[in-house]
Amino acid sequence: MTELTIQQLEATHLLACKVARAAGDYLREDQLRRRNVTLATREKLNSVDLVTAADEGVEKLIREAILKEYPEHAFIGEESYSAGEEKRFLLKDEPTWIVDPVDGTVNMVHMFPMTAISIGFCVNSIPTVGVVFAPFLGGKGTLYSAIHHPQGGAWLSEFGHDGPSTPLPLTSPPPPLPVDAPKGCLFFGEYGKDRRDHPQSNLTKKATNFVNMATEIGGREGKGGMVHGIRSLGSSTMDMVYVASGQGDIMFEAGCWEWDVCAGIAILLQTGGIVVDSNPPPDLGPTDPIPMANLGGRRYLAIRGCSEDAEGRSAREQQERLVREVWKRTERLDYKRPV
Amino acid sequence: MTELTIQQLEATHLLACKVARAAGDYLREDQLRRRNVTLATREKLNSVDLVTAADEGVEKLIREAILKEYPEHAFIGEESYSAGEEKRFLLKDEPTWIVDPVDGTVNMVHMFPMTAISIGFCVNSIPTVGVVFAPFLGGKGTLYSAIHHPQGGAWLSEFGHDGPSTPLPLTSPPPPLPVDAPKGCLFFGEYGKDRRDHPQSNLTKKATNFVNMATEIGGREGKGGMVHGIRSLGSSTMDMVYVASGQGDIMFEAGCWEWDVCAGIAILLQTGGIVVDSNPPPDLGPTDPIPMANLGGRRYLAIRGCSEDAEGRSAREQQERLVREVWKRTERLDYKRPV
Repeated sequence: MTELTIQQLEATHLLACKVARAAGDYLREDQLRRRNVTLATREKLNSVDLVTAADEGVEKLIREAILKEYPEHAFIGEESYSAGEEKRFLLKDEPTWIVDPVDGTVNMVHMFPMTAISIGFCVNSIPTVGVVFAPFLGGKGTLYSAIHHPQGGAWLSEFGHDGPSTPLPLTSPPPPLPVDAPKGCLFFGEYGKDRRDHPQSNLTKKATNFVNMATEIGGREGKGGMVHGIRSLGSSTMDMVYVASGQGDIMFEAGCWEWDVCAGIAILLQTGGIVVDSNPPPDLGPTDPIPMANLGGRRYLAIRGCSEDAEGRSAREQQERLVREVWKRTERLDYKRPV
Repeated sequence: MTELTIQQLEATHLLACKVARAAGDYLREDQLRRRNVTLATREKLNSVDLVTAADEGVEKLIREAILKEYPEHAFIGEESYSAGEEKRFLLKDEPTWIVDPVDGTVNMVHMFPMTAISIGFCVNSIPTVGVVFAPFLGGKGTLYSAIHHPQGGAWLSEFGHDGPSTPLPLTSPPPPLPVDAPKGCLFFGEYGKDRRDHPQSNLTKKATNFVNMATEIGGREGKGGMVHGIRSLGSSTMDMVYVASGQGDIMFEAGCWEWDVCAGIAILLQTGGIVVDSNPPPDLGPTDPIPMANLGGRRYLAIRGCSEDAEGRSAREQQERLVREVWKRTERLDYKRPV
């Protein structure tokens, strides 16, 4: 069991913000150069699973800056994981950085601005500091961050490193969830990279899930959710931070990895949200408390923070109710960790 | 036939930018007030078709500012159209403003920043000046605009009204379309507000279209498009401007209206893109030139501007080829103009 003081966490938060902005500068300069050339990409899994030299350059930049300051900390990064042999989930209780240098690489290749640098820091296996910087979103980039601690906080910064920040969630206190949620919710999900054509493929099931959530109440054999809208941004990191900030209600995503969501989860936890497995645990009774998602489990269902509702239901009661309503309307997805 | 000089068009562009930013200030102030209260909404068609007092306030602000300067111009606005009896498409050749005060109202209610003020100006029924301002995207908002004219231009402005602008498209000259397009394209589309559960409903067909576009080549009985990604932002205005700016390749959307796309189309045309009917015209032969979309037709398929490719195919040849490839993979949608 590691104990870090709020001062120590503030120092890691400050470093993560600084490093994320430096990584963002790197990507912005890279994009400026690209405005006259087409970006070289390499395929990983298939033609939609891309890696660019920038992904690898940024991971190196982040890793070096962090380990210079904290040589005793562990470090898990997407690109080194992908290149390596070890595929188990390696998080232990020791202080560990979990980093995605570029989430939304496809977007970056197309210059669609939903691309993020995601720097998470775990203590005792809990996402504790999170920094998500979207360098192309707005003139100065958009930075979301949090220290998950009773004396911590969560912030949105859109005016550069010396500009003002806005506390998160954006609406404070956050409103209760809609009474008939998922009806009235804003739902974020992605089609992902598994594009196989098969009735039981993840692509087919995800598409079914989206239609269920969107359809009028009573439709789809009772599975219609009549959400306000389905949003697909091509970045599970951004999906998660929008829900964490109260700019959306539900994030449902499977197939991504701990580095895609770790930083966002730190923000989500600090703003009162929850994240559980997007597949219902097999032995869970109808009134059992719902366990938090396994960070390495590749399946995430996040619900934003909220206040007690008019009938006196607590945030947790509303959130767990909504989780069960989403589970009822969605098919189990087949993503596992390689062993 | 009206003839406006480039100087006259520059004056309308300047006014539209000024008015869009003023409308954005109005929405930002409104959102700041809302951070402590829940926004009152009124349903139009159903529980996902919302209008707020801000939508109506902003339309009034824009209409008054424009008609004060140009009392002789015609004006078509979403909110006054919705409230009125006349449902025909009223555009004539006279100078006409076509305005959506708030596109992405659902997003605004949830504080998801994909909300835009869309101010288009048509001359001889052609979108000629377009200004799209997303006031919540980045600290100073994000403004896309164009004057569609040989001496015109198109610009992205992310640093406030006195900050620098970037010429559009972002990559100049724009790259050719991918050789096997739609494979490798970034595709934008929306589920929309029609949520009826029926095998032939627009929702069902749109979902089918998205899965077709996403599936591997050869899948879905030959309809698999293996696009790089499907993006749904909840704002057809923003979908259109991302394609117009070269930050995406294909925008496929039906059910929206002329005010959602008019301004974006002016930008698209100036950057070399095309927009056609998302349903193939019934009598079109396989080598016939493809006509431009009817601006009031509620069905839009836009393809970004591009340069001649390595085999010497012109931009138009690549674009028309891609249009036909998208048509092959998508079902005809049932949106018409009310008469």
